[in-house]
Order: sequence, then structure tokens, then C-alpha cells
Amino acid sequence: MRPSVAPKPSMIYVMGNTFGSLFKISTWGESHGGGVGVVIDGCPSLLPLEEADIQRDLDRRRPGQSKITTQRNEADTAEILSGVFEGKTIGTPIAILVRNEDAMPAAYDHLKDVYRPSHADFTYDAKYGTRNWQGGGRSSARETIGRVAAGAVARSLLRESTDMEVLAWVSQIHNIKAEVQNENVNFDEIESEITRCPDREASDAMVSAITEARKNGDSLGGVITCLVRRVPAGLGVPVFDRLEADLAKAMLSLPASKGFDIGSGFSSVEMKGSEHNDAFTPGDSSPVTTSNHSGGVQGGITNGSEILFRVAFKPTATISAPQETVDKSNNSVTLEAKGRHDPCVLPRAVPMVEAMTLLVLADHWLRNQTARINN
Amino acid sequence: MRPSVAPKPSMIYVMGNTFGSLFKISTWGESHGGGVGVVIDGCPSLLPLEEADIQRDLDRRRPGQSKITTQRNEADTAEILSGVFEGKTIGTPIAILVRNEDAMPAAYDHLKDVYRPSHADFTYDAKYGTRNWQGGGRSSARETIGRVAAGAVARSLLRESTDMEVLAWVSQIHNIKAEVQNENVNFDEIESEITRCPDREASDAMVSAITEARKNGDSLGGVITCLVRRVPAGLGVPVFDRLEADLAKAMLSLPASKGFDIGSGFSSVEMKGSEHNDAFTPGDSSPVTTSNHSGGVQGGITNGSEILFRVAFKPTATISAPQETVDKSNNSVTLEAKGRHDPCVLPRAVPMVEAMTLLVLADHWLRNQTARINN
Amino acid sequence: MRPSVAPKPSMIYVMGNTFGSLFKISTWGESHGGGVGVVIDGCPSLLPLEEADIQRDLDRRRPGQSKITTQRNEADTAEILSGVFEGKTIGTPIAILVRNEDAMPAAYDHLKDVYRPSHADFTYDAKYGTRNWQGGGRSSARETIGRVAAGAVARSLLRESTDMEVLAWVSQIHNIKAEVQNENVNFDEIESEITRCPDREASDAMVSAITEARKNGDSLGGVITCLVRRVPAGLGVPVFDRLEADLAKAMLSLPASKGFDIGSGFSSVEMKGSEHNDAFTPGDSSPVTTSNHSGGVQGGITNGSEILFRVAFKPTATISAPQETVDKSNNSVTLEAKGRHDPCVLPRAVPMVEAMTLLVLADHWLRNQTARINN
Amino acid sequence: MRPSVAPKPSMIYVMGNTFGSLFKISTWGESHGGGVGVVIDGCPSLLPLEEADIQRDLDRRRPGQSKITTQRNEADTAEILSGVFEGKTIGTPIAILVRNEDAMPAAYDHLKDVYRPSHADFTYDAKYGTRNWQGGGRSSARETIGRVAAGAVARSLLRESTDMEVLAWVSQIHNIKAEVQNENVNFDEIESEITRCPDREASDAMVSAITEARKNGDSLGGVITCLVRRVPAGLGVPVFDRLEADLAKAMLSLPASKGFDIGSGFSSVEMKGSEHNDAFTPGDSSPVTTSNHSGGVQGGITNGSEILFRVAFKPTATISAPQETVDKSNNSVTLEAKGRHDPCVLPRAVPMVEAMTLLVLADHWLRNQTARINN
Repeated sequence: MRPSVAPKPSMIYVMGNTFGSLFKISTWGESHGGGVGVVIDGCPSLLPLEEADIQRDLDRRRPGQSKITTQRNEADTAEILSGVFEGKTIGTPIAILVRNEDAMPAAYDHLKDVYRPSHADFTYDAKYGTRNWQGGGRSSARETIGRVAAGAVARSLLRESTDMEVLAWVSQIHNIKAEVQNENVNFDEIESEITRCPDREASDAMVSAITEARKNGDSLGGVITCLVRRVPAGLGVPVFDRLEADLAKAMLSLPASKGFDIGSGFSSVEMKGSEHNDAFTPGDSSPVTTSNHSGGVQGGITNGSEILFRVAFKPTATISAPQETVDKSNNSVTLEAKGRHDPCVLPRAVPMVEAMTLLVLADHWLRNQTARINN
Repeated sequence: MRPSVAPKPSMIYVMGNTFGSLFKISTWGESHGGGVGVVIDGCPSLLPLEEADIQRDLDRRRPGQSKITTQRNEADTAEILSGVFEGKTIGTPIAILVRNEDAMPAAYDHLKDVYRPSHADFTYDAKYGTRNWQGGGRSSARETIGRVAAGAVARSLLRESTDMEVLAWVSQIHNIKAEVQNENVNFDEIESEITRCPDREASDAMVSAITEARKNGDSLGGVITCLVRRVPAGLGVPVFDRLEADLAKAMLSLPASKGFDIGSGFSSVEMKGSEHNDAFTPGDSSPVTTSNHSGGVQGGITNGSEILFRVAFKPTATISAPQETVDKSNNSVTLEAKGRHDPCVLPRAVPMVEAMTLLVLADHWLRNQTARINN
Repeated sequence: MRPSVAPKPSMIYVMGNTFGSLFKISTWGESHGGGVGVVIDGCPSLLPLEEADIQRDLDRRRPGQSKITTQRNEADTAEILSGVFEGKTIGTPIAILVRNEDAMPAAYDHLKDVYRPSHADFTYDAKYGTRNWQGGGRSSARETIGRVAAGAVARSLLRESTDMEVLAWVSQIHNIKAEVQNENVNFDEIESEITRCPDREASDAMVSAITEARKNGDSLGGVITCLVRRVPAGLGVPVFDRLEADLAKAMLSLPASKGFDIGSGFSSVEMKGSEHNDAFTPGDSSPVTTSNHSGGVQGGITNGSEILFRVAFKPTATISAPQETVDKSNNSVTLEAKGRHDPCVLPRAVPMVEAMTLLVLADHWLRNQTARINN
Repeated sequence: MRPSVAPKPSMIYVMGNTFGSLFKISTWGESHGGGVGVVIDGCPSLLPLEEADIQRDLDRRRPGQSKITTQRNEADTAEILSGVFEGKTIGTPIAILVRNEDAMPAAYDHLKDVYRPSHADFTYDAKYGTRNWQGGGRSSARETIGRVAAGAVARSLLRESTDMEVLAWVSQIHNIKAEVQNENVNFDEIESEITRCPDREASDAMVSAITEARKNGDSLGGVITCLVRRVPAGLGVPVFDRLEADLAKAMLSLPASKGFDIGSGFSSVEMKGSEHNDAFTPGDSSPVTTSNHSGGVQGGITNGSEILFRVAFKPTATISAPQETVDKSNNSVTLEAKGRHDPCVLPRAVPMVEAMTLLVLADHWLRNQTARINN
């Protein structure tokens, strides 16, 4: 477990802040500095769009929204700087800006030279030879504001052109597992719980567990489940841009995520082919499956069944209990974190999972429009 | 579970057959037709390379290599068509060709109009309005020949320039779990078992289970574990091209894979932050961690610890037991598959997992070379 | 000359607002709306950078800078929103914002339904089914603010890491041709003339011609010459990303440009091979050429000689003399433009040509750092 | 004219062998070695395609086709290895292979250590520290086989889906200028002349000039004009992927090209805005222009008029007259080239210019299909 290469302050690198091929987003911004934002390139013209469409999703991810999230309080108000004219997109890049407000850089002074365990302080220094130590910089969850804003635009696009519905919820926190009927679960049920777990009983237990963790200066992880309904067959591009491959990348690019599986996922391992295969049966106009172990994707392309996948999130790295670590000079120090933070990121991660899913779907939906010979 | 859009024979689309940004590969070819291959663009010049380097890995993935793989027998001999001169790369694209040999298209005649369950027959038709029905076409595992060939070139590049070691093995088949010491496991132990599971006892049980499944016309899934040793700190590009995000995409792009997790992965969910965080302690010249729940990656960038991840594979979709399905005209039919196939893809998937890992690492290693101001 | 396809208001498309592969910029913004800007992704960390570095070049392209430019008066003040911390880049995206200030949308009311000749009004409508008619929208020269800001960052990068010098000047306006000694011409000479033509006599004639054109409600075109000194051998990536190919694309992407040639260019056509070939002769440590008809590039790669190329600009499309045209309903109308505009874009295009050249060079310089086996 | 950086044998780099965004081609191969080829990714499915479609264009570029081209004689027979099934494309990558046949590496032995003037020998060595000296390697015109093959596929795609016609011809060789009526010129007239100049009188003079140049061991340059008829309005993607910018890049990526201009091009410089602007007048269903100084493109987007542009080619660098140069050890040597070569590349460059134009148009045509909200 020894780093084989010490940090080299002079090493400098390319970044990967762009996601998507046709519905392409580029996020920018640190948790401290002028602000954070996103540029969306490739959104079709003539799509009705206003700031309220974006604000709705940003409000679902903003800090301070409930008693179980961080108390850092920022309105995170979005301003559309370009690409929209008279209430519609015009085919040009859509730039969205959210100013940083509640930044309290002084609160981070004690972290200037310390590497917080399981944070990105050390790795950013190792890679870039520098970092914005006033908060998490670019590795802060604040970076996801741009993603959620862009996801809201993707949502508008998909709503205008398809009838797909993307729904994500918290299905597990620590060892508390929810029971959710995929057939019936709906947005209002999810949003009515501050945990975003639609199983009220489980949700109440989760609130208690999170509250307890916060009291102990500790943190909890969990699982988010995501379901896409009314999916057209044909989305996904073999062989590398399989839909599940793009979803996996999207999810593992979220802060604190550690795993992804689709359909039967890791549990498929203990099934036999004869149990696992999804038999086809004649549908109204085309084949339908009698089971959905595939999670809606075969050969990397949607088959018209629902897409269903899970994302595992580790417990938040920021805890207030004292921890042993080292500083930039490679000396032992004891760290007591003072900042405001989430004891469990799951409730606020739900709109992030949705956003990334919407971005993948919008991109593949656009890619599917590319070219009909008999146009 | 009804496809909301019926296949449209006239819909035509873009493909995604390229992987990597600086060490970029493009695979091509169907299981039936002239052959399969890959073009590698971005491999540095002056790298010693010969066909034997490539053949070594191709031999590990080729069919017919043992009693538990498909008996389809193809030598899969690689020819380097360009990019190498006098035993070294010259900085130009490296084109590699493997001719198709043992294709028996007649063996597929009965599949021309039938959608095999959990195969890509229906989804390719839905997307492209056509497919090469003589075998799996592009969704055949045969497509991975190009990946494994390119992975061998990546292996040469990394060996020449770093001391990283990539090691993958079968850690579970069906419900048989191996016990493997990550510290000690080595290539020879893995390769000495036809299962590529280095726990001999478990391996023997796996052979029996696979043999039994084949006898019953059934198939089995499993888990492959992958370990990377002596990783330099600093690999991985925030925010979307996090190393774990690129690995997840790479793994979920493999045929039959259903899940990915890294480090503590899905089991992190039931840990608390105080248990999960990897404490830093002073190392010789830079910090090291006292545990590795992160799996070697923090904030999307390697921290110098070993990279450790798992990939779940579903049981092979091709089984010889009779199955209910439909044909292109949406009529019920009973399918009895006649082709030769693997009752369990795991042993042959090990070199595929290695290849994709090598490709991700080579790409990020190259990206890390990009630019030092004090050059 | 009949458009074979009428504008379809519902047709919507992907955009191409990104330039560069490793030093990658994405510009956004219309001439009217919140502002214009750029996101730079891939700039190495630890580069000293402050807003003044950017403002210097923006001031050279801003309107109202002299009596021969448009009198539209905007300070075009740049704000760095991210990617810089404590005076240095940190390897994260650099977002730069310039607010729109002197927008007078009412001045454009009479253009709402009219297609100005040789402008992009009709073509944007044909492509996107809509456009921001308050000014030129995205086709306005105002879009180049993002390019010039990014070019200034590229200039800082190249200055820190190479000793290349990029120098552009006006070499012709209408039929007035300057005489310039490439060996001696320097930045101060160029900047001391409001035309940015370093031949004072020609410059004076140009000022008269521009003044006369403005008086007549007319406009003039011209040629900009660009020279790069102290170029390292080895820049440029065969076969499609030849240095001259990337330069040609960069130049033809500038508003109003109509042609590009390099070295002997169009005049090479009437030379014979025996006259045109650049003979090699031994230099101090490597070959040098005794002539430079190649313009510094052979086989798409720099040979160490100076890069020299020309860009042709058409006369500005906006003129105040009355013109026959049609409106959106395909009816004849007579247009009398009322806006403020440049009678000749050349003086302000000089920093644009420089910026695009710097961006191409920075990109290729970074690409050249990618990977040494003997690292 | 001194290279500021001597060749560094250990410097290694990324390549740029891919062209296009949605209709994407990757060429590979050197003039000596296994062969040359191309992989086309993104071609729609269900396009009728056979090897004869490709061979037709390859035959127009092959050596030995007439008395004024090189006498190197290769059939250049194309084999389609993938992506086509039962006479139609299936949406997967189309790999095309042409084996090298008439390679006579011994003929190049004397060039092993010598840098031919105005060739890429020195620059490839400077960049890659090595090169395939048996012929021009990757900088050989032989590389364009892949482009012409891919262009033929693009031609099939455009023919199936639009009625555009791409026509290129030789309009000047050395100082002999052709007179061609753009309105009437047709394919048969062009192909009936071995010069591919449709003005018979000029063509005869060109044949004499080329024959004379060959006799003197010298070479000639020239101009190719390209015309696209029946262009739909709306092709081209602002701001960087303007149609003229992509065309300029395409043309400057061809071996020996030195310049590009569109519409009035370099001659626009001496026109006034009032002369240059293309007035709109009502057409049948949408505006048409009464002149075409724009060359069919305004704001980077086609306006429905014909596209018209020119490409300048320098005289071939390979001449047989003795030349002064240096060897790899930086010593003076006298070179007498012995290989077979073209005294003038123009006739064989016509299908290359067409191919690159077709590739740009196919790419932009596909990009234009991306997404209609009212799908």
C-alpha cells in the first residue's frame, strides 16, 4: 500500500471535464472561487427552456434542504448566460452559472497542509502539484451542480421527444434496506421523504441512523436504485458505448460511488443460464420479455424493457471524529474536521444519479437520430 | 416489459467502436466475414513489438484451449499490417488482422429468423434493421480479439515505462467462491488452472460444476477479480474520466458483464466512515495508507496503493436446452441451439479483463505525460 | 444558386463550439444575452496566470479602440471564474466570463424579419429554425472574445515552456499592399499603427481608404500575414492533424475569412520542383534549409524553420448603403443597416489570427509531450 | 531557418489518423509493409455497398494509369473485411484492406540515411526518432488509398440520401490555366482527359509541360477546383466546424497541398462590400442569391448555392535532378533520386480532393440529422 511515486509538484496534466458525445456537457468550477457552472453543447434548438426548469432540480441537490443534510446554506441560483432566446433554445451552447456564496475559506485554514483520509487532497497534490485547499476544490460535491443543471435540460429534451421517465431513490442506508415495488413507486412518494427513500418505515429508520451518525461524528453509506420506464428499443451503441457501459462510467464518476450493477447484476453470478435468460413472447407488435434479468439491455442496446440499476455509495469521508493522518511534509498529525458536512450523501445524491442517467439517455437518444437513408 | 418502440428496419445509427483518448483503439469485424481486427493509434514510437507479444495473449483467449471452453477451434493468428518497422513501433497506426477460419455459417441457418433469448439478435435488428445472423456478428465474443491484441501492445508499453503489474483471476463461479491471498497470487498459479482460478480446490469444484452444466445444456456465471500492483500515484483524470469511471466503462463494455465495484465496493455500504476511511501514515518519502478500502483510488486519482476491483458476469446466454422465444414475424417458436459454445465464459474472460485494464492504464499513463511547464 | 432545401423550422442540430484536442477550448455566448466566454480544459497546472494577461489581448480586439473601428464601445472586462488559485493554474478548467454591456437590442428591431446579404441570418434560420436576431447572435465577431481570451492563456503557456514568438500583421487592405521585412518586423512596430500594418506609408494609405469606405457606407477586405519564430522541429500530427491543416481550419473558422495559404502557397503553383524544394545544409547540430518555400512545415510536421502563412478576409458584410434583399416571408425588401460596425475588420482581426495560431501551437506542443518510453 | 530543436530519437507522440465526427474514418498503413487501409465507423446501416463501388474510385487514383503518372504499377485491389452483409451495410465498422504489391524496398536503400529536400524524412525522424525509410512510409501518397476508399462509401451514402454532386478538376498546371464553364462541366469531360482538365486545349498543353518536366527530371504544381451542386441549405456547424473550416482542413491534410480558398477567396480582398455581398431575391419557396461570392457558405453554413473552392498543390518534391542535402549525421551529400514518381500529382489528386470533400459532406449531412424535437 505504498505509493510507488511520490508527488511531483511540477507534473501537469490534461483534464476530463466533458461528458457525452452529441449531448455534450463540460462542467467547471471549484467549491471556492467565482462559482461553478456548465456549458451544454449539442442541445437541439426550439426546446422550451427557462431557469425555473433548472432550479427545480438544483433545489433537490442543494445543501441545507433538510435536517439530515449539511447545514451549509446556499441558494444555488442558476443563471442562463447564453443559448436561450425568447424562451427557447437556439441551437447554440447553453452556459449556466451558479455563483459561490456561502464560502467560508477561513474555515479551511487548518486543512491547508493536511491530507484528509479518503479525500482527494493527497491525490490532487500528487497529480497537479497544487490544489485549491479552500474546500474540496474540484473534488467537492459542489462540482455536481453543473451536472444537475445539465441533467435538467436533458430532462426537458427527453420529455419533449419521448415518454421515458427516470426515477431514482434511496434503497439502502447502512444496513437498513427498503422494500419498494418498482411497478408502483412514483416521484411524489420519493420526494415526500427527506431521505428520498419511498418506504416510509425504512425511511424513518434511516433518519434515526443518520442522526445518530452525525451525533457520533460519523457517516453512513448506502445504495441508490434507478429505474427508467417506457424505454424505446434501440438505445446504446456497440461495442464500447454500450448503454450499460456509459451508465457505469456516469455513475462511477460521481463522488463517493464505489459500485454499479444492472439488472440481476452481482446476483446473476449464482443463477444458471436457464434461469437467467429472459424468454421472448409475442407482444402487440414486437417481442416482449417475460422476465427482466437483463435490466433492459441486451448486447449493449435497450430491448424496450425497463432499465434498472443500482449504485453503491461509501460512507462520507468527512467525519468530525479525530483521525490519524499526515501533512504535506509527511509528518503524522491528528485531524479534527471542523467544516459543515453531510453525514450521509445519499438523499442529495438521488438527483445526481438522475441527472447522469438523463445525460446518458439524451446523448444516446440523439445518437439514435443520426441518419436514416430513407430520410 | 413491453418495448415501447417496435424495430424500425430503416433506422440507422452511429457506432462506438473506439476506446481510449491518447492510447486509442478501434476494433472492427464480425464473427463471420473476412476477419476481425484492431487499429491502435497513439502508441509511442520506438517500442519493441513483434507478433509473438500479441499472440501470447490471444492464445489465452482463443476457443478450444481446454476441455471447459467451447470446442470451436481457431488458431486466431495475428498479423501486424502496419506501424512496426525493424522490430519497433514507428509512431504510426498499428493495424492488426486475424482472419476468420472456422466459420460454419450453415450451422446458423436455423437462427436466421429467430431471436435467441438474452442475446443481441433482437436489439441489433431493432437498432439497425439488419444483422449478420451468421453467428453473433459484432456482439460475438470474437470481437474481443481486437481488444486482447491491443491490450498486449498496452502491456508492452507499460512494461517498458513503468513497473505496474496487472493480474486478473476467476474468484467465483456460480456459488463456488475461491480463497485467494491478494498479496501472493501470481501469474503462474493462475495460468496453471484451466479455470484461471488460483485456488486449486475451488478450481477443481468449478471444473466439475462447468462440466455438469454443459452436460445439462446449461451455463454458469461468475466473478473476476483484478489487481494492479505498483501503481504510481496520480493516474486518473477528474471529473468524468476518474480512473474508476473509465475502468467501470471498460468492464461493462465486455460481453456478459453485469456489474463492477472497486475497493470495498458494494460492501462499503454497511460500513461507517470511521471504519472505512483509509488513514494516512508517513511512508518513506510520501504518505501511505494503513488500509485500502478505496481500492487505490481517491477522488478519481490513484493514491499509490494497489487497484482492486471485481466484475460480475452473467451465465452465458447460449444454452442448448430448449427455450421459448419468438421469430422476426413475432410468432412463438421453440429454440434448440446447435452451435458450439462456452458453458462458462469466465476462464476466457480473464485475458479480456486484463486487456481492458491495460488499455485504461496505458491511456491514463500517456495522459499523465502531457506537459510539464518546467520541461 | 437556388437553395435546394427551404428552411425547416423544426430541424435541430449538433454544434461545434470546441477547438483543440489537449489544449481544448469551448466558447459560448451571443452578442446579446448575459455575456460571452470560454472554458479552457487541459491547461497544465502551475502556470502563472492573472486577469491582466487576458485583458491585454482583449483590449487589442475590443471595439472602439481607434477611429477606424466600430464606435460600439465595450470595455470587455474578463473575469476568471475558476481554475486559478493563488495566481497559478491548478489543472482544472479555466472559465472566463465577459458580460455584454453596450447591447442595444432596439437598434436591431428592423432586422428581426430581414435577411442581411452575406450575413448568417438566413443560414442560421435554415439550420436552426430560429436565431437571436438582436445582433449577429453566435455569428457575431463578439464570439471571438472567448478565442482571444483563451489565446492569451495559450500565449502564457508557450512563453513559459518554449521561446516561440507569434506575430501577425495586416499586409494588405483592398489594393494597398504593405512591404514588410519578415526578418525584422516586431510587435511594437505593428501595434504603433492603428491599422496593425507595420509599413507606415501603406498604413497611412489604408487609413485613408478605410475612412473613405466608411464615408461611402461601404467596406474593405484584406490580408493578414502570420509569422512564428523559433519553432521547434516536430510539431504537427500526421496525417489529418498536419500542422498546416489545423492552422487552415483555425483560420477558416474566423468570421469573414475566405482563404489560407502557407509558405509559397498559391504562388508555388507556377514554380518547378527544382526551384521550390528547400535544400538542406548542415546546421550546428542538425540540418537547416537554405530556403523556406515550405513555410516551416514538411509532411505536416515543423522542420524548425519559421512558420509563415496568409489569411484572406472579405470586405465586411455590414454596409450602410441600401441593399436589395428578402424577408422571412420571401418578399423583396430594401435594407438600410443602422447599427455601428467596422468598415474593415482587419485591424481587429490581427489578435484573432494570433489567438487561433497560439491555440493550435499550444495544442500541438502538448501533444508532443505525450509519452517518452525512456521517461 | 535553423531548427531550434534537434531531432530527439526518444521523443514519442500521439497520432491524428482519424477524420470526421459522425462519419468517421481512420486510415492506417505505410507504403511498404503489409498494406494500407481504412476503418469507417458511423456509416448508416442498409446502404447498398460492394467492392466495385470502391474500386471505381481507387482506379482513378492508382499509379500507372496513364503516361503522365508514375509508372509504379499496382492494381490496388480493395477487400471489404467487415461491416457489409448480403450486399448492404449493417451499421458496424467497415474495414477495407489494400495489400502492398509492387514494393521494391531495395530501390530505397540509398535513401536510408539521407534527408530528401522538401520531403518528410527529416521531420518524421525529428518527431518519432525513426521512420520507415522504404519509401515515404506514412507520408507517402499511398496513404490516401484509405481516404479514397472511404470517400467512395461517402459517395454512396450521399447518393442514396441527397442529390448533391461533387465534381473536381485540374484548373491549372504550372502557368497553364484552363477555361472551364462551371455551369456545364461534367464528369465525362473531366475523365476523358488524362490530366483531368476538361479544357482540351489546356489539357494538351499540360500534357506537353508534364512530359517536358519529366524529361528534365523536374516536377510541376497546379490548382484543383472543386464544385458541389444541389447543396441543401443548412450544412456546417458553427463556430469551429464551419463547413469551409472543415473543407480547409481536409484539403490542407492532403500531401503537397499549400493553399485553399472558397468563393471569391483571395480575390475578395480587392473587392468592396457593396460589390462582394450576395444580394438575396425571392426564390420559389425561399430566398436565393443573385451572385455567389460566398462560394455557397455564409456564417459557416451552406445557403443552398453551389459550393466552389480551390486547392493549390506545390510541384512534387521528388525530382530526379541531383540535389544538395544532408544525411542523418548532418553531413552534406548529393542526392540523385532513383525511384519511380509522378512529375505532377494533379491528375491523381483529383479523386483525393473529391474523396475529402465527400467525407466532409457526409459527416455534416449526418450531423444535420441529429435530432428533431418534433420527431
